[in-house]
Amino acid sequence: MRQASTILTVATRGRGFTEITQEIATWLGATGIQEGLLTLLCRHTSASLLIQENAAPAVKTDLAAWFERLAPESDGYAHDDEGPDDMPAHLRATLTGVNLSIPVRYGRMQLGTWQGIYLAEHRRAAHRREVALHLLGE
Amino acid sequence: MRQASTILTVATRGRGFTEITQEIATWLGATGIQEGLLTLLCRHTSASLLIQENAAPAVKTDLAAWFERLAPESDGYAHDDEGPDDMPAHLRATLTGVNLSIPVRYGRMQLGTWQGIYLAEHRRAAHRREVALHLLGE
Amino acid sequence: MRQASTILTVATRGRGFTEITQEIATWLGATGIQEGLLTLLCRHTSASLLIQENAAPAVKTDLAAWFERLAPESDGYAHDDEGPDDMPAHLRATLTGVNLSIPVRYGRMQLGTWQGIYLAEHRRAAHRREVALHLLGE
Repeated sequence: MRQASTILTVATRGRGFTEITQEIATWLGATGIQEGLLTLLCRHTSASLLIQENAAPAVKTDLAAWFERLAPESDGYAHDDEGPDDMPAHLRATLTGVNLSIPVRYGRMQLGTWQGIYLAEHRRAAHRREVALHLLGE
Repeated sequence: MRQASTILTVATRGRGFTEITQEIATWLGATGIQEGLLTLLCRHTSASLLIQENAAPAVKTDLAAWFERLAPESDGYAHDDEGPDDMPAHLRATLTGVNLSIPVRYGRMQLGTWQGIYLAEHRRAAHRREVALHLLGE
Repeated sequence: MRQASTILTVATRGRGFTEITQEIATWLGATGIQEGLLTLLCRHTSASLLIQENAAPAVKTDLAAWFERLAPESDGYAHDDEGPDDMPAHLRATLTGVNLSIPVRYGRMQLGTWQGIYLAEHRRAAHRREVALHLLGE
Protein backbone atom coordinates (compact mmCIF):
# COMPACT_ATOMS: atom_id res chain seq x y z
CA MET A 1 0.00 0.00 0.00
CA ARG A 2 1.39 3.42 -0.88
CA GLN A 3 0.39 7.05 -1.29
CA ALA A 4 0.76 9.70 -3.95
CA SER A 5 -0.28 13.33 -3.90
CA THR A 6 -0.07 16.47 -5.97
CA ILE A 7 -1.61 19.90 -6.39
CA LEU A 8 -3.60 20.44 -9.59
CA THR A 9 -3.74 24.09 -10.62
CA VAL A 10 -6.78 25.21 -12.58
CA ALA A 11 -6.84 28.57 -14.38
CA THR A 12 -10.48 29.66 -14.47
CA ARG A 13 -11.92 32.34 -16.76
CA GLY A 14 -14.35 33.64 -14.16
CA ARG A 15 -17.71 32.19 -13.22
CA GLY A 16 -18.34 28.80 -14.77
CA PHE A 17 -17.37 25.13 -14.80
CA THR A 18 -14.02 23.65 -15.81
CA GLU A 19 -13.94 19.92 -16.37
CA ILE A 20 -10.86 18.36 -14.76
CA THR A 21 -11.64 14.65 -15.23
CA GLN A 22 -8.94 14.10 -17.86
CA GLU A 23 -6.15 15.87 -15.94
CA ILE A 24 -6.94 13.75 -12.90
CA ALA A 25 -7.09 10.52 -14.93
CA THR A 26 -3.70 11.30 -16.47
CA TRP A 27 -2.10 11.88 -13.06
CA LEU A 28 -3.77 8.74 -11.69
CA GLY A 29 -2.40 6.69 -14.58
CA ALA A 30 1.13 7.99 -13.98
CA THR A 31 1.10 6.84 -10.33
CA GLY A 32 0.71 3.21 -11.41
CA ILE A 33 -1.75 2.57 -8.57
CA GLN A 34 -4.41 0.11 -9.72
CA GLU A 35 -6.78 -0.14 -6.78
CA GLY A 36 -7.32 2.50 -4.14
CA LEU A 37 -9.05 5.67 -3.04
CA LEU A 38 -8.72 9.09 -4.64
CA THR A 39 -9.53 12.24 -2.65
CA LEU A 40 -9.89 15.78 -4.02
CA LEU A 41 -9.94 18.97 -1.97
CA CYS A 42 -10.53 22.40 -3.50
CA ARG A 43 -8.45 24.76 -1.35
CA HIS A 44 -10.77 27.77 -1.66
CA THR A 45 -14.01 29.11 -0.20
CA SER A 46 -15.44 30.67 -3.37
CA ALA A 47 -14.77 27.81 -5.78
CA SER A 48 -15.94 24.21 -5.34
CA LEU A 49 -16.04 20.70 -6.76
CA LEU A 50 -18.90 18.70 -8.19
CA ILE A 51 -19.58 15.59 -10.20
CA GLN A 52 -22.13 16.20 -12.93
CA GLU A 53 -23.32 15.26 -16.39
CA ASN A 54 -20.46 15.43 -18.90
CA ALA A 55 -22.38 15.29 -22.17
CA ALA A 56 -25.09 17.96 -22.49
CA PRO A 57 -23.72 21.54 -22.29
CA ALA A 58 -27.19 22.87 -21.41
CA VAL A 59 -26.87 21.25 -17.99
CA LYS A 60 -24.18 23.79 -17.13
CA THR A 61 -26.42 26.66 -18.25
CA ASP A 62 -29.20 25.44 -15.98
CA LEU A 63 -26.83 24.82 -13.06
CA ALA A 64 -25.50 28.39 -13.32
CA ALA A 65 -29.05 29.80 -13.39
CA TRP A 66 -29.96 27.67 -10.38
CA PHE A 67 -26.95 28.93 -8.39
CA GLU A 68 -28.05 32.48 -9.21
CA ARG A 69 -31.57 31.70 -8.00
CA LEU A 70 -30.58 29.99 -4.74
CA ALA A 71 -27.70 32.34 -3.86
CA PRO A 72 -28.26 35.54 -5.87
CA GLU A 73 -25.95 38.50 -6.16
CA SER A 74 -27.53 41.28 -4.12
CA ASP A 75 -26.65 44.21 -1.90
CA GLY A 76 -28.26 42.51 1.08
CA TYR A 77 -25.23 40.66 2.44
CA ALA A 78 -23.36 41.65 5.60
CA HIS A 79 -20.07 40.43 4.06
CA ASP A 80 -19.41 42.60 0.98
CA ASP A 81 -15.78 43.78 1.39
CA GLU A 82 -14.72 42.01 -1.79
CA GLY A 83 -17.71 42.99 -3.92
CA PRO A 84 -21.25 41.74 -4.54
CA ASP A 85 -20.10 38.46 -6.10
CA ASP A 86 -18.09 37.34 -3.05
CA MET A 87 -20.73 36.25 -0.53
CA PRO A 88 -22.89 34.44 -3.13
CA ALA A 89 -19.67 32.66 -4.14
CA HIS A 90 -19.22 31.41 -0.55
CA LEU A 91 -22.86 30.24 -0.48
CA ARG A 92 -22.56 28.41 -3.80
CA ALA A 93 -19.34 26.75 -2.63
CA THR A 94 -21.20 25.60 0.50
CA LEU A 95 -24.03 24.24 -1.65
CA THR A 96 -21.78 21.96 -3.68
CA GLY A 97 -18.93 21.34 -1.24
CA VAL A 98 -15.17 21.35 -1.72
CA ASN A 99 -14.20 17.70 -1.50
CA LEU A 100 -14.81 14.43 -3.32
CA SER A 101 -13.80 10.81 -2.68
CA ILE A 102 -13.66 8.40 -5.61
CA PRO A 103 -12.83 4.69 -5.52
CA VAL A 104 -10.25 3.50 -8.06
CA ARG A 105 -10.17 0.06 -9.74
CA TYR A 106 -8.05 -1.26 -12.62
CA GLY A 107 -6.20 2.05 -12.58
CA ARG A 108 -9.37 4.07 -13.30
CA MET A 109 -11.80 6.18 -11.30
CA GLN A 110 -15.06 4.29 -10.80
CA LEU A 111 -17.18 7.12 -12.19
CA GLY A 112 -20.37 6.34 -14.07
CA THR A 113 -20.52 6.77 -17.85
CA TRP A 114 -22.06 10.23 -17.71
CA GLN A 115 -20.14 11.58 -14.72
CA GLY A 116 -17.45 14.24 -15.07
CA ILE A 117 -15.55 16.09 -12.34
CA TYR A 118 -15.85 19.86 -12.44
CA LEU A 119 -14.24 22.76 -10.66
CA ALA A 120 -16.90 25.44 -10.26
CA GLU A 121 -15.55 29.00 -10.17
CA HIS A 122 -18.03 31.19 -8.33
CA ARG A 123 -16.28 34.59 -8.61
CA ARG A 124 -16.71 36.86 -11.63
CA ALA A 125 -12.98 37.28 -12.21
CA ALA A 126 -10.50 34.72 -13.50
CA HIS A 127 -8.56 32.94 -10.73
CA ARG A 128 -5.87 30.32 -10.32
CA ARG A 129 -7.41 27.58 -8.16
CA GLU A 130 -5.66 24.71 -6.40
CA VAL A 131 -7.08 21.22 -5.97
CA ALA A 132 -5.16 18.88 -3.66
CA LEU A 133 -5.19 15.30 -4.98
CA HIS A 134 -4.42 12.35 -2.74
CA LEU A 135 -4.29 8.71 -3.70
CA LEU A 136 -3.91 5.72 -1.41
CA GLY A 137 -3.73 2.22 -2.80
CA GLU A 138 -1.60 -0.42 -4.45
CA MET B 1 -3.89 -3.20 5.51
CA ARG B 2 -6.06 -4.41 2.65
CA GLN B 3 -8.86 -3.32 0.34
CA ALA B 4 -12.25 -4.65 -0.66
CA SER B 5 -14.72 -3.29 -3.17
CA THR B 6 -18.02 -4.12 -4.80
CA ILE B 7 -20.89 -2.60 -6.73
CA LEU B 8 -24.22 -2.44 -4.90
CA THR B 9 -27.18 -2.40 -7.28
CA VAL B 10 -30.32 -0.64 -6.08
CA ALA B 11 -33.63 -1.07 -7.90
CA THR B 12 -35.61 2.12 -7.31
CA ARG B 13 -39.33 2.53 -7.85
CA GLY B 14 -39.05 6.07 -9.15
CA ARG B 15 -38.66 9.24 -7.12
CA GLY B 16 -38.01 8.61 -3.44
CA PHE B 17 -35.53 7.30 -0.90
CA THR B 18 -34.24 3.74 -0.54
CA GLU B 19 -32.41 2.93 2.67
CA ILE B 20 -29.24 0.91 1.97
CA THR B 21 -27.66 0.89 5.44
CA GLN B 22 -28.32 -2.79 6.06
CA GLU B 23 -27.02 -4.00 2.67
CA ILE B 24 -23.82 -2.07 3.25
CA ALA B 25 -23.43 -3.35 6.83
CA THR B 26 -23.84 -6.92 5.60
CA TRP B 27 -21.16 -6.52 2.94
CA LEU B 28 -18.88 -4.79 5.44
CA GLY B 29 -19.29 -7.67 7.90
CA ALA B 30 -18.42 -10.22 5.22
CA THR B 31 -15.08 -8.51 4.44
CA GLY B 32 -13.85 -9.15 7.99
CA ILE B 33 -12.25 -5.70 8.13
CA GLN B 34 -12.55 -4.30 11.65
CA GLU B 35 -11.07 -0.83 11.40
CA GLY B 36 -10.90 1.29 8.29
CA LEU B 37 -12.56 3.70 5.93
CA LEU B 38 -15.64 3.03 3.81
CA THR B 39 -16.34 5.12 0.70
CA LEU B 40 -19.56 5.17 -1.34
CA LEU B 41 -19.97 6.64 -4.82
CA CYS B 42 -23.31 6.79 -6.62
CA ARG B 43 -22.43 6.38 -10.30
CA HIS B 44 -25.24 8.58 -11.66
CA THR B 45 -26.08 12.25 -12.15
CA SER B 46 -29.79 12.06 -11.37
CA ALA B 47 -29.63 9.94 -8.22
CA SER B 48 -27.58 10.73 -5.11
CA LEU B 49 -26.58 9.66 -1.61
CA LEU B 50 -27.42 11.15 1.75
CA ILE B 51 -27.27 10.34 5.42
CA GLN B 52 -30.49 11.22 7.20
CA GLU B 53 -32.87 10.39 10.02
CA ASN B 54 -33.82 6.70 9.94
CA ALA B 55 -36.79 6.68 12.32
CA ALA B 56 -39.54 9.17 11.38
CA PRO B 57 -41.03 8.54 7.91
CA ALA B 58 -42.39 12.12 7.80
CA VAL B 59 -38.82 13.37 7.37
CA LYS B 60 -38.75 11.80 3.91
CA THR B 61 -42.04 13.50 2.99
CA ASP B 62 -40.63 16.88 3.99
CA LEU B 63 -37.32 16.23 2.22
CA ALA B 64 -39.17 15.41 -1.01
CA ALA B 65 -41.28 18.58 -0.74
CA TRP B 66 -38.11 20.62 -0.10
CA PHE B 67 -36.38 19.20 -3.18
CA GLU B 68 -39.46 20.16 -5.21
CA ARG B 69 -39.33 23.69 -3.80
CA LEU B 70 -35.58 24.26 -4.34
CA ALA B 71 -35.37 22.51 -7.72
CA PRO B 72 -38.90 22.38 -9.13
CA GLU B 73 -40.08 20.63 -12.23
CA SER B 74 -40.78 23.36 -14.79
CA ASP B 75 -40.58 24.08 -18.48
CA GLY B 76 -37.96 26.74 -17.90
CA TYR B 77 -34.84 24.59 -18.24
CA ALA B 78 -32.48 24.69 -21.23
CA HIS B 79 -31.76 20.95 -20.80
CA ASP B 80 -35.04 19.11 -21.34
CA ASP B 81 -34.23 16.36 -23.89
CA GLU B 82 -35.13 13.64 -21.41
CA GLY B 83 -38.28 15.25 -20.04
CA PRO B 84 -39.22 17.81 -17.38
CA ASP B 85 -38.01 15.64 -14.49
CA ASP B 86 -34.43 15.32 -15.79
CA MET B 87 -32.86 18.71 -15.08
CA PRO B 88 -34.42 19.03 -11.59
CA ALA B 89 -32.99 15.55 -10.95
CA HIS B 90 -29.48 16.81 -11.79
CA LEU B 91 -29.97 19.81 -9.50
CA ARG B 92 -31.22 17.67 -6.60
CA ALA B 93 -28.28 15.30 -7.06
CA THR B 94 -25.95 18.33 -6.89
CA LEU B 95 -27.68 19.49 -3.71
CA THR B 96 -27.04 16.27 -1.82
CA GLY B 97 -23.91 14.98 -3.56
CA VAL B 98 -22.99 11.53 -4.81
CA ASN B 99 -20.31 10.36 -2.38
CA LEU B 100 -19.93 9.57 1.31
CA SER B 101 -16.97 8.58 3.51
CA ILE B 102 -17.63 6.68 6.72
CA PRO B 103 -15.08 5.57 9.32
CA VAL B 104 -15.36 1.93 10.46
CA ARG B 105 -14.52 0.60 13.94
CA TYR B 106 -15.11 -2.82 15.50
CA GLY B 107 -16.40 -3.97 12.14
CA ARG B 108 -19.22 -1.39 12.08
CA MET B 109 -19.83 1.97 10.42
CA GLN B 110 -19.46 4.76 12.96
CA LEU B 111 -22.88 6.24 12.18
CA GLY B 112 -24.89 7.93 14.90
CA THR B 113 -27.95 6.21 16.37
CA TRP B 114 -30.42 8.03 14.13
CA GLN B 115 -28.39 8.04 10.94
CA GLY B 116 -29.30 5.90 7.94
CA ILE B 117 -27.75 5.87 4.47
CA TYR B 118 -30.16 6.55 1.61
CA LEU B 119 -30.02 6.41 -2.14
CA ALA B 120 -32.23 9.21 -3.44
CA GLU B 121 -33.80 8.54 -6.82
CA HIS B 122 -34.63 11.86 -8.47
CA ARG B 123 -36.22 10.63 -11.74
CA ARG B 124 -39.92 9.77 -11.96
CA ALA B 125 -39.32 6.34 -13.48
CA ALA B 126 -37.90 3.25 -11.79
CA HIS B 127 -34.16 2.76 -12.40
CA ARG B 128 -31.37 0.36 -11.55
CA ARG B 129 -28.71 2.42 -9.77
CA GLU B 130 -25.13 1.46 -8.98
CA VAL B 131 -23.25 2.45 -5.85
CA ALA B 132 -19.51 1.69 -5.81
CA LEU B 133 -18.37 0.61 -2.32
CA HIS B 134 -14.71 0.72 -1.34
CA LEU B 135 -13.20 -0.32 1.98
CA LEU B 136 -9.64 0.14 3.14
CA GLY B 137 -8.51 -1.14 6.50
CA GLU B 138 -7.43 -4.12 8.53
CA MET C 1 0.70 2.49 7.00
CA ARG C 2 -1.39 2.77 10.14
CA GLN C 3 -4.70 4.14 11.43
CA ALA C 4 -5.81 6.36 14.28
CA SER C 5 -9.29 7.38 15.32
CA THR C 6 -11.12 9.29 18.01
CA ILE C 7 -14.42 10.96 18.81
CA LEU C 8 -14.32 14.74 19.11
CA THR C 9 -17.10 16.09 21.32
CA VAL C 10 -18.34 19.60 20.58
CA ALA C 11 -20.55 21.48 23.05
CA THR C 12 -22.69 23.86 21.00
CA ARG C 13 -24.60 26.83 22.35
CA GLY C 14 -27.56 26.36 20.04
CA ARG C 15 -27.82 27.44 16.42
CA GLY C 16 -24.52 28.63 14.96
CA PHE C 17 -21.05 27.63 13.85
CA THR C 18 -18.24 26.26 16.03
CA GLU C 19 -14.79 26.22 14.48
CA ILE C 20 -13.02 22.92 15.19
CA THR C 21 -9.93 23.29 12.97
CA GLN C 22 -7.52 23.73 15.88
CA GLU C 23 -8.83 20.76 17.91
CA ILE C 24 -8.45 18.55 14.87
CA ALA C 25 -4.95 19.85 14.08
CA THR C 26 -3.86 19.16 17.67
CA TRP C 27 -5.13 15.57 17.54
CA LEU C 28 -3.55 15.09 14.11
CA GLY C 29 -0.19 16.33 15.42
CA ALA C 30 -0.35 13.91 18.37
CA THR C 31 -0.78 10.89 16.06
CA GLY C 32 2.62 11.53 14.45
CA ILE C 33 1.22 10.65 11.02
CA GLN C 34 2.86 12.86 8.38
CA GLU C 35 1.13 11.88 5.16
CA GLY C 36 -2.35 10.44 4.85
CA LEU C 37 -6.07 10.97 4.68
CA LEU C 38 -8.27 12.46 7.38
CA THR C 39 -12.01 11.75 7.44
CA LEU C 40 -14.63 13.48 9.60
CA LEU C 41 -18.17 12.26 10.21
CA CYS C 42 -20.73 14.26 12.21
CA ARG C 43 -22.86 11.60 13.91
CA HIS C 44 -26.13 13.58 13.87
CA THR C 45 -28.95 14.50 11.50
CA SER C 46 -29.54 18.06 12.74
CA ALA C 47 -25.93 19.24 12.88
CA SER C 48 -23.44 19.15 10.03
CA LEU C 49 -19.90 19.91 8.85
CA LEU C 50 -18.62 22.50 6.44
CA ILE C 51 -15.41 24.12 5.30
CA GLN C 52 -15.74 27.88 5.03
CA GLU C 53 -14.00 31.23 5.30
CA ASN C 54 -12.20 31.54 8.64
CA ALA C 55 -11.47 35.27 8.70
CA ALA C 56 -14.57 37.46 8.22
CA PRO C 57 -17.25 36.92 10.91
CA ALA C 58 -19.92 38.46 8.64
CA VAL C 59 -19.74 35.34 6.45
CA LYS C 60 -21.31 33.37 9.28
CA THR C 61 -24.12 35.93 9.63
CA ASP C 62 -24.90 35.64 5.93
CA LEU C 63 -24.68 31.83 5.99
CA ALA C 64 -27.19 31.70 8.87
CA ALA C 65 -29.58 34.02 7.02
CA TRP C 66 -29.24 31.90 3.88
CA PHE C 67 -30.05 28.69 5.79
CA GLU C 68 -33.15 30.42 7.15
CA ARG C 69 -34.17 31.45 3.63
CA LEU C 70 -33.61 28.04 1.99
CA ALA C 71 -34.99 25.94 4.85
CA PRO C 72 -37.15 28.25 6.99
CA GLU C 73 -38.76 27.48 10.29
CA SER C 74 -42.48 27.12 9.57
CA ASP C 75 -45.54 25.20 10.63
CA GLY C 76 -45.80 23.57 7.22
CA TYR C 77 -43.70 20.46 7.89
CA ALA C 78 -45.13 16.96 8.28
CA HIS C 79 -42.36 16.09 10.78
CA ASP C 80 -42.79 18.41 13.79
CA ASP C 81 -42.72 16.10 16.83
CA GLU C 82 -39.62 17.79 18.21
CA GLY C 83 -40.67 21.37 17.49
CA PRO C 84 -40.57 23.82 14.57
CA ASP C 85 -36.75 23.97 14.49
CA ASP C 86 -36.30 20.22 13.98
CA MET C 87 -37.24 19.64 10.34
CA PRO C 88 -35.41 22.76 9.07
CA ALA C 89 -32.40 21.43 11.00
CA HIS C 90 -32.56 18.16 9.03
CA LEU C 91 -32.83 20.10 5.75
CA ARG C 92 -29.88 22.36 6.60
CA ALA C 93 -27.79 19.32 7.57
CA THR C 94 -28.68 17.78 4.18
CA LEU C 95 -27.64 21.01 2.43
CA THR C 96 -24.12 21.01 3.88
CA GLY C 97 -23.56 17.29 4.51
CA VAL C 98 -22.11 15.46 7.48
CA ASN C 99 -18.73 14.25 6.24
CA LEU C 100 -15.43 15.68 5.01
CA SER C 101 -12.23 14.13 3.63
CA ILE C 102 -9.00 16.07 3.89
CA PRO C 103 -5.56 15.05 2.58
CA VAL C 104 -2.68 15.41 5.07
CA ARG C 105 0.94 16.28 4.17
CA TYR C 106 3.91 17.15 6.40
CA GLY C 107 1.69 16.44 9.39
CA ARG C 108 -0.85 19.12 8.43
CA MET C 109 -4.25 19.23 6.78
CA GLN C 110 -3.94 20.54 3.23
CA LEU C 111 -6.55 23.24 3.74
CA GLY C 112 -6.25 26.54 1.90
CA THR C 113 -5.20 29.69 3.77
CA TRP C 114 -8.76 30.90 4.32
CA GLN C 115 -10.41 27.56 5.01
CA GLY C 116 -11.63 26.57 8.46
CA ILE C 117 -13.61 23.49 9.51
CA TYR C 118 -16.93 24.21 11.22
CA LEU C 119 -19.53 22.19 13.01
CA ALA C 120 -22.90 23.78 12.24
CA GLU C 121 -25.52 23.34 14.96
CA HIS C 122 -28.96 23.63 13.40
CA ARG C 123 -31.18 23.22 16.51
CA ARG C 124 -32.10 26.16 18.74
CA ALA C 125 -30.96 24.46 21.94
CA ALA C 126 -27.41 23.71 23.07
CA HIS C 127 -26.29 20.13 22.30
CA ARG C 128 -23.28 17.88 22.74
CA ARG C 129 -22.30 16.75 19.25
CA GLU C 130 -19.93 13.96 18.27
CA VAL C 131 -17.58 14.04 15.29
CA ALA C 132 -15.81 10.77 14.44
CA LEU C 133 -12.24 11.41 13.24
CA HIS C 134 -10.32 8.80 11.26
CA LEU C 135 -6.78 9.03 9.97
CA LEU C 136 -4.99 6.63 7.69
CA GLY C 137 -1.38 7.20 6.72
CA GLU C 138 2.24 6.94 7.70
